[in-house]
Amino acid sequence: MLASIITIGDEILIGQIVDTNSAWLGQTLNQIGIKVVQIVSVSDNEQQILETLDKTIHESDIVFITGGLGPTKDDITKYTLCKYFQTELVLIPEYLEKLEAYFKKRGRTINEANKGQAYLPKNATPIENTRGTAFGMWFEKDEKIVVSMPGVPHEMKSMMQLEILPKITNRFELPEILHKNIMTIGMGESIIAEKIADIESSLPATIKLAYLPNLGLVRLRLSAYTTKKDLKTTTLLVEQLTQSIVSRIQEHVYGYDEQKIEEVIGHLLIENKETISTAESCTGGYIASTLSSIAGCSTYYLGSVVTYSYELKTQELGVKQTTLAQFGAVSAECVEEMLDGLLHKTKSTYGIAVSGIAGPSGGTEDKPVGTVYISVGDKNSKLTKRYQFTDNRADNIIYSTNMALFMIYTHLINKKKN
Amino acid sequence: MLASIITIGDEILIGQIVDTNSAWLGQTLNQIGIKVVQIVSVSDNEQQILETLDKTIHESDIVFITGGLGPTKDDITKYTLCKYFQTELVLIPEYLEKLEAYFKKRGRTINEANKGQAYLPKNATPIENTRGTAFGMWFEKDEKIVVSMPGVPHEMKSMMQLEILPKITNRFELPEILHKNIMTIGMGESIIAEKIADIESSLPATIKLAYLPNLGLVRLRLSAYTTKKDLKTTTLLVEQLTQSIVSRIQEHVYGYDEQKIEEVIGHLLIENKETISTAESCTGGYIASTLSSIAGCSTYYLGSVVTYSYELKTQELGVKQTTLAQFGAVSAECVEEMLDGLLHKTKSTYGIAVSGIAGPSGGTEDKPVGTVYISVGDKNSKLTKRYQFTDNRADNIIYSTNMALFMIYTHLINKKKN
Repeated sequence: MLASIITIGDEILIGQIVDTNSAWLGQTLNQIGIKVVQIVSVSDNEQQILETLDKTIHESDIVFITGGLGPTKDDITKYTLCKYFQTELVLIPEYLEKLEAYFKKRGRTINEANKGQAYLPKNATPIENTRGTAFGMWFEKDEKIVVSMPGVPHEMKSMMQLEILPKITNRFELPEILHKNIMTIGMGESIIAEKIADIESSLPATIKLAYLPNLGLVRLRLSAYTTKKDLKTTTLLVEQLTQSIVSRIQEHVYGYDEQKIEEVIGHLLIENKETISTAESCTGGYIASTLSSIAGCSTYYLGSVVTYSYELKTQELGVKQTTLAQFGAVSAECVEEMLDGLLHKTKSTYGIAVSGIAGPSGGTEDKPVGTVYISVGDKNSKLTKRYQFTDNRADNIIYSTNMALFMIYTHLINKKKN
Repeated sequence: MLASIITIGDEILIGQIVDTNSAWLGQTLNQIGIKVVQIVSVSDNEQQILETLDKTIHESDIVFITGGLGPTKDDITKYTLCKYFQTELVLIPEYLEKLEAYFKKRGRTINEANKGQAYLPKNATPIENTRGTAFGMWFEKDEKIVVSMPGVPHEMKSMMQLEILPKITNRFELPEILHKNIMTIGMGESIIAEKIADIESSLPATIKLAYLPNLGLVRLRLSAYTTKKDLKTTTLLVEQLTQSIVSRIQEHVYGYDEQKIEEVIGHLLIENKETISTAESCTGGYIASTLSSIAGCSTYYLGSVVTYSYELKTQELGVKQTTLAQFGAVSAECVEEMLDGLLHKTKSTYGIAVSGIAGPSGGTEDKPVGTVYISVGDKNSKLTKRYQFTDNRADNIIYSTNMALFMIYTHLINKKKN
């Protein structure tokens, strides 16, 4: 089954936004065995959309369109699709009600432009949008399918996951593709590659291994192409390969597939009915917001103290003024006192304390930009490390967060073992 | 002058990499007045490349191709271009020497595959690559230009900057394109559209307006196509239009072009030598990390208290137990006490306090998921609001953050006026 992707919007052509929708769609479709043959980005221009649609529809079985479905005048995708499929817009009263409820819930009144979004092409199956006001559309003609979705990434993704992918997999017999993701943290891509070089070089031709690194995390993806007949054997083989790889890098594997390290930490804490809190300086609340991004975290996540200023470090976490004077705020001594003060204050079982120089300014010869101290532990034992990350402020904040989570994860696992 | 961009490579179609080359090229070309009419990504497949080239060459004056120039077997762009332009590869001895020197410098010996890179199409002008081993190529035929470049972003960019852009601007008289972005917050796309409907419908054909919404923020982009001769008049016109639009939605415009709301808040605080801190519950540190993502924030951002648990709300922010018992943690009373406690603790000039139900669980009939209370202000005055956002946890956190920043921005602006 072949697919094409069309992304519509001037903002893509002038490079104001990077088209991440296509990459996500490419990845998602690939995982269920649909091959993307081309991605085309065009402007909000009727003739261009019509021509591109005509070309791609001939070269694929299904065409995914994103963008141009908003309530404003520059959004012409719906009208253009009506023209292409020679149909007209009709009001769907049920959708108008939904839209009215959507606005009412937010304490706003619906206006004419938004009411227009309840008009949909007569011969299209509407697709619900649980995250916004633009409905999606599913057209069929001469054995070909065209799906139109909003360009806002989170609306498009939820529409795909909730409605479109189930519709496709129910209806078509797709080839079997098995994916297994090994989620690792705290080890570089090239070191992992070295450790599993022999496994990688002896992979059968039908199994591919990809390295997907992301600021301290590396996802190893095994993809196996198979048939219904060979599914069982292939599943077993992928499982064996996974175990071989994991055995080489055991301490850096925190989970599988879509798991996040902050989620795994949450599970470990829930299991033991334990709690955590954080004391942050250079990460400025990023660790707190990462831990609390997990639904249900309120059972184990108590809170955080972000002490950007010297005064708050002393006042809130009891860091000694002599420590700050002698070793500076970016030091092992400071993060350890931050951790002690945090555990004393919040009474959480575990704590994370971080202080560093995120940059771009503030670096010295001894402690250049990217120097970060992290201390993690509980009232009985703590581990403190110095890291040297990059020149980039945003990357340093994420690296610090990932390494702090890796350290506390390791601490929890070691405690579980003993 | 119209351009098309073709990016070649399976890794783009399966979503393993996001095609950032196209966005960069789009932006760069747009800045010198070349209009990109389409971006097409195709796989390393001869027929597909030939067909795409044929189509795009008819629809534009210049085609930029990236990717498929490496030394390995799957890199077929050069051979395909030879076929398209009916020419053959010839060895350029000078380039072979350059390649040999390149490898020698890196302590490596050149292999046969790399030697092959010194073979270039007879009728193309080669383009030097100062960052890698694949030369670029500049073809001309029937008044059309095709430029082929490597896919590695930094190699492609340096080739564009050092050789291709100067070649283009020297040779062609290009139109001028003006962009103006109006950055708004706290007003929906459709309400803005309503308020400026008359301005929008009377825009001259050469000026386009686009709405780019993102969870509480909307960027309005005016794009004007003009000539060197009319540049001054058009600049003035865009400026006038900008002022007309801004006058309708004044209170929601926080800046222009690439500005972020957290950056503007930072500037306002620096101007007055004032400081800020935050007390967060449902946002879990996201507001703190947004404020501290700005370089240099340590002059005005003191820190934050994230109180996820009831105990910490009482202990750290002095929220009364009777308040929690009577009104709950998600209430106007609670966030106001959080704000008072915060200002007392951190001594910052301004504070932001947030408490709500991010979801997915924890909602009640009175306070469904997405209910969020925000209080902002200083020791003399505060403003508290109740919001109803969405069902989605991640979205609710970002919406809350954006609305909190909008409220404190408004507070700062009003204070400045009075």
